[in-house]
This record gives sequence, C-alpha cells and structure tokens, in this order.
Amino acid sequence: MLRNTKRPANAIDEQRLWRRQMELARFGARPDGGVNRQALSAEDIAARRQLIQWATARGFACTVDPIGNLFVRRAGRNPDAAPVLTGSHMDSQPAGGKFDGAYGVMAGLEALEALEDAGIPTERPIELVAWCNEEGGRFPPGAMGSAAYGGAQKLDDLLAIRDWEGVTVEAALKSTLAATPQAALRPLGGKPAAYVEAHIEQGPLLEAARTTIGVVTGIQGAQWYHVEVTGAEAHAGTAPLKTRRDALKAAIAMIAALEQLMADETDTVRFTVGRFDVTPNSTNTVPGRVLFTIDFRHPDASVLARLGGAIEGVCRSNARGCEVHVNKTLDMSPIRFDPAIQRQIDTTAGELGLSRMAIASGAFHDAKYMNPLCPSGMIFVPCEKGISHNPVENATPGDLAAGAKVLVEVLVQLAGRAV
Amino acid sequence: MLRNTKRPANAIDEQRLWRRQMELARFGARPDGGVNRQALSAEDIAARRQLIQWATARGFACTVDPIGNLFVRRAGRNPDAAPVLTGSHMDSQPAGGKFDGAYGVMAGLEALEALEDAGIPTERPIELVAWCNEEGGRFPPGAMGSAAYGGAQKLDDLLAIRDWEGVTVEAALKSTLAATPQAALRPLGGKPAAYVEAHIEQGPLLEAARTTIGVVTGIQGAQWYHVEVTGAEAHAGTAPLKTRRDALKAAIAMIAALEQLMADETDTVRFTVGRFDVTPNSTNTVPGRVLFTIDFRHPDASVLARLGGAIEGVCRSNARGCEVHVNKTLDMSPIRFDPAIQRQIDTTAGELGLSRMAIASGAFHDAKYMNPLCPSGMIFVPCEKGISHNPVENATPGDLAAGAKVLVEVLVQLAGRAV
Repeated sequence: MLRNTKRPANAIDEQRLWRRQMELARFGARPDGGVNRQALSAEDIAARRQLIQWATARGFACTVDPIGNLFVRRAGRNPDAAPVLTGSHMDSQPAGGKFDGAYGVMAGLEALEALEDAGIPTERPIELVAWCNEEGGRFPPGAMGSAAYGGAQKLDDLLAIRDWEGVTVEAALKSTLAATPQAALRPLGGKPAAYVEAHIEQGPLLEAARTTIGVVTGIQGAQWYHVEVTGAEAHAGTAPLKTRRDALKAAIAMIAALEQLMADETDTVRFTVGRFDVTPNSTNTVPGRVLFTIDFRHPDASVLARLGGAIEGVCRSNARGCEVHVNKTLDMSPIRFDPAIQRQIDTTAGELGLSRMAIASGAFHDAKYMNPLCPSGMIFVPCEKGISHNPVENATPGDLAAGAKVLVEVLVQLAGRAV
Repeated sequence: MLRNTKRPANAIDEQRLWRRQMELARFGARPDGGVNRQALSAEDIAARRQLIQWATARGFACTVDPIGNLFVRRAGRNPDAAPVLTGSHMDSQPAGGKFDGAYGVMAGLEALEALEDAGIPTERPIELVAWCNEEGGRFPPGAMGSAAYGGAQKLDDLLAIRDWEGVTVEAALKSTLAATPQAALRPLGGKPAAYVEAHIEQGPLLEAARTTIGVVTGIQGAQWYHVEVTGAEAHAGTAPLKTRRDALKAAIAMIAALEQLMADETDTVRFTVGRFDVTPNSTNTVPGRVLFTIDFRHPDASVLARLGGAIEGVCRSNARGCEVHVNKTLDMSPIRFDPAIQRQIDTTAGELGLSRMAIASGAFHDAKYMNPLCPSGMIFVPCEKGISHNPVENATPGDLAAGAKVLVEVLVQLAGRAV
C-alpha cells in the first residue's frame, strides 16, 4: 500500500519522455531538423507502429476506429465505466516540427507508463488517443479524426476526400490499418467521462511570462473573410489620379481602416491580412482588381460579433469608387473549456510548485470536437519563441515533463484513484 | 498658281484617312476588334507591304534602315536639304488597338497625299517614318528603332535581342527586309530638320476637356522603384499583434504614407503601386515578406527629384520593425519639346478653328529619341475614355482628321512652302 500513496507526478520520467519525443521525430525527419509526417502517409504508419509497440510492451490494449483514430487503453478497476481520454495527434505539417501534436500523444503515453511504474490503479480506464489527420495538409479539412468521433462530420464524407494525387482517405486508411494489425477495430465515437489534451502553446505568451503551465480557458473563435475589390485598369503614366478607380489603393485604405477598427490595448484581438492578390500585377498598370483575406480571432463571442459585423461597412466606406464584395468564408464560435477541469489543472500545477497562467488557445485543436461530448480541457507548455508549424519548433525537456506531471495528476483525479 | 494658294489642311481627306486606318487594322486583327501586330511578325510585314504599296502608288520613294525603320519620302525642291520627319510606329501590343502608333503613320501618309493632291511643293523633303518596334512586347525594350536611329542604343546590341521563342531581332529583320524588296536599304541615322509625331492621347484629358488638339509640351519623367519589406512569418491565431513583424501591414503603412507624400491638388503627379507580391500569401499566416513597385511620373524634373528623393525615407519611417530595401529600377528624365514647334501647333490649330490645350505626354513615344537630334514636337488627338493598349481603343474620324490637318500645316511650315 506504500507505493499506492505515491504522487503520480513523481513517476513522470523526464528523460524517457524526451527520448520518446526524439524517437518519434525520426519518422518523417527532415534534413533541417523538422518533421514531415502527413496523415496516413508511410511516415505516419511508421509512427503508429512505434506507438503500438511501446503500448503493447507495457500490456496496454490498442484499438483503431473507422476514421483511423488510434487508442491505447490502460484498464481501470471498473471495466464498464466510461474512460477518461487524453491525447492529441501524430501527423504534422509538411514543414512541421517535433512537438505539435506529438507532445500530447507522448505525454499521454508517459502518463500511462508512469501510473504503471508507480502501480497506481484507477477506477475508470484511461485511454490515450492519437487523433487522425489533425493538420489537414494532405486531406483537408483538419481535425478529421476528432470531428468524426464527435459527430461533427460524417464518416462517408471524410472517406471520399482525396489528396493532391487523387488518393482517397478511404484508400489511405486501408493501407494504414493493414499495416497496424495489432490494433483491433473498434466502432466510431464514444462518450468519454472527460478529455484532457496536452500541447505546446504555439504562441509566445508562456515564454514571455516565464510561466510553465498554461491553463487553457478555451479556443478563441475565428472568422475568415474574402474581400474582393474591383476598380478599373488604367495606364500608370497617363491616367490622372482623380479619374482612377484603383483597386489596390482602395484595398490599402480598407486595411488601414480595419487596423483602426481592430485596435486593442489588451492585444487580444488577432487581425491578419495574409493573402493579397493583385490583377494584373504589373508595374505600370493601375490595378483593376484586388482580392485580400481577413483572419480575425477573439476568445469572446460578443467581441467577434461586434467587430466582425463592422468589417463589411468599413470596407465599403473606403471603397473609393470601386465595387467591393465581402464574403465570410469561415465562422467558428469560441469554445470555453469546463471550468472544473481548468480549476483542477490550476490547483494541481500549484501543488506541484509550477508557475501557471490562464491562456486562450489561438490555434484550433482536437479538443474543440471533444468539448461538446464531455468535460474537456487543455494544458499548454511553452515553445521556443512561440514558433510552431516550422522545422525549428522547439521546447525544453523540463517544460514537457512539467506538463506531463500536471496531466497525469489530473487524469487520475478524473478517473478516480482506486484504493 | 491658283492651286498653290490652297491651304494644305483643306486637302486632308477625312474619309480616306479613316479608311486607311481600318484597312491597316486588318493586319493582325483580333476577333475582339483589337489588333495584335507585334514587331517584325508576319502581320507587321503585311502592314509594311501595304504602306509601301500606298506610297509607291503615289510615286513616293521607300527606304528601310538596318534596324527596320521604314521611310516614305516626298521629294522637296531642294534635294540636298535635310528632310522634315513625321511618323510613329505600326507595331502594336499583343492586345492592342487600331490607333496607338498606327494613327501617326496614317496621318503622315495622309499629309503627304494631301500635299500631292493639292499640288503643294515644299523646299525640304518631307519623310514619313514607321519606327520599328516601339511597343517592345516581342523584343524588349521598346522604341528600339528610334533609339537606334537617334544613337541612344547600339545596333549590334539590339540585333542580338531574342523573343520568347529565341528568334533574334537580326533574324526577324532579315525575313522582314526580304519581304519588302521595294524599300531600298539606307544607312542608319540622320539629321532631320525637325520631327513632328501625331498620336492618340492614350489618356482622358482631351476628351474630358472637350478639346480636339493636344499641344504636347513634353514627355513626363518616370521613376520606378522596387520596395522589399522583410518581417517574420507567424501564426495568425497565436501571435499577439505587438510581437509581430508583419511585412504586409508595414507595406500598407508605407503606401498610405506615400499617398500623402504624393498628394497633388493639380493632379499632375502620377503615383501607382501596380505590383504587390506577398510571401507566403496564406490566409492564416502573418506575411513575412512583401515586394511592391512604385511607378512615379511627373513632367517637372525638380518635382521628380524632390518627391522621388523622399520615397525611401517615407518607407523607412513606416517599416514597423521590418527591414526595408528600396531600389530605383528606372529613372527617365522629363523631355521638353521645342517651344517654337509647340507654338506652331498651337497657332495652326487656332487658325483652323480647332480647340487646343497644352498637355504633357504620360506615355513614352519615339519622339523621345528624336528630341535630342532636332526640334521636335507631338500632336495629340482624343481617344475614347482615354483607353489605350486595349482592343477597345477608339477615336473619331473627325478628331483624327483634325490632327492630320494641323500636322500637314506644321510640316509645310517646317519644310518651307515652295513658290
């Protein structure tokens, strides 16, 4: 019974976690130190086989569902109880790093192994999941596996999606499942008792605040817009400026005015013009057409509604005689994670002597699709300079282990420590 | 002797001029009503053969020089006197119209024919020239023929230039000259007594002012710049705005500030940002790099120097933490045409009861390379909505004839009416 009073966090092995992180990064390793491990590719299959090998070596059962989500189960005392779920994804961007997604899976595996090492039983089973195709680079849209699991997307629709070479998700999945026969097929979906995902922040806030643990409050909402500005082409040498309908200068005026609209002392608004396409894009021709995009995000639904609702008017007020069409191409509501889980993460980090702060997730995550199903939460750890989706993505072994310590403690609390 | 008192302008045949304009437009005619007659192409050769046919039918001698400029000569009483030169070009943009260049050649031919019809002799010969390759679409740079004639470019350098298919100017010229054996070879260059070129305005000023004749004061100067802005790519969802070095927003701020710099109540400044290239140009990535161009023109050298000299400083002041490199890629001084010829055009138009106004040319013309050689000038006539370099380019028969009337009178004044 002595072992059983051991704190789960103390069983987290920082070196093992880091070693596994590095071993996983061999699958799809890029010469520049990054990772190219796109969903259902040969590299993804190799990573899945490695995860299954690590799991079965510890006696954990592996299963896979019809959309390719891979599960590793540590049994609980009560086999009929809904499991507590943790995990993230193992696929990467084409020019991705070693930690985005991979950390959440390795931290979950480390949690299961730590409980095994410490001999700590739980009432509920704890399941680790590697969600299929979170990045969406090869098969858009992203978060395919969690969306199918949560019922936000239909399996058949997803199976028919093709990559650039015409390969369907269905065909790629068939090869993947054939290569991982140790994972028994399980039905799609489920009703976990709770979901907790560990992830690198992918932003600079924790590092800047010298804080180890981000208690994620939710995922900010996002709106995307296409703004199409149509003027008239003219000769740059002859057309007087007063006669012009210059689509570029109108677009410039719109973006400058949108910057004013989006001005935010608290620096919470995320306002980005990422794409700007000019026609005919020739030095000595007044542009007749510009298409630009707006990516606008905020954690507060009312701010999203107020500022997002003002975008079209601001564009129209600065059209300078051009036609303007504003189309909203994406509208994702913000998500608030379960307050009780946020409190558990916060309290646990405090008990472990770790600095922590509340933080909204700027990026999307699989947790988005779990949140409607069950109490959900996320734990962030710092990444170097906030850089992600990039081969130079980096994090420290100590921070990764700190996140795993909080994770394992919260998982045990949610699963119920068996006595 | 009665015929000899006839006013040359009265012999201009509006219908003949319009008919010839339409006949010339058959060579390279596009289905959309425009003209694709690129330099030294089969279409250009056909147009040259037509011009030679029209000229020789009236007894005018045709010659061609080593860069392919085609000359039509109406002899003067004094065969040793330097000729008065008029003309323009017959090549077009790939999606060009019926009038750009072609009008100046047809107006010159009409002038020669009118003098022949009216039996008006001149002391000096009058030569019509169809300059080779003014547009430069197939063989850049443009104004190749007049530049070689004026000595601004070396013949051998020009002969070596290749089109997209690898054909050299030399090879294309060889085919062209072989197809026009009626034009005897003449040496390159010369020293005309004067040069007058008729052209459509290619801008909207005459039409807007309901004025028939533009007395061209000169060709405005032009400066081109490449502005390269380098920031840092970042995640549109996670990177706080205060931490970003957003190359697009910096470029926007620069262009907005340049608009202030270039603000001009008189609407004489021509300031165009025609090209704007964003890297990586993705909706949810903060742009790391923007390249944009500036096309800045003005007729006054001191204004060009003052405003052009301020561009780099304005860009640097708005760099917002990005690196900025400003490179001047073109610097053409403004040209002032001979004041005496401007006065002759103005006075003649007045005598003929034609409305006229002083106007600076916004576009480049072959006259640029004649101006250093001899007293030079240009006569503009209106074009519909100022549209040029476009298949819908249009002008009225009456305006074209009015320009030819002024042209023939000025040519006779410059060549000296023989008694």
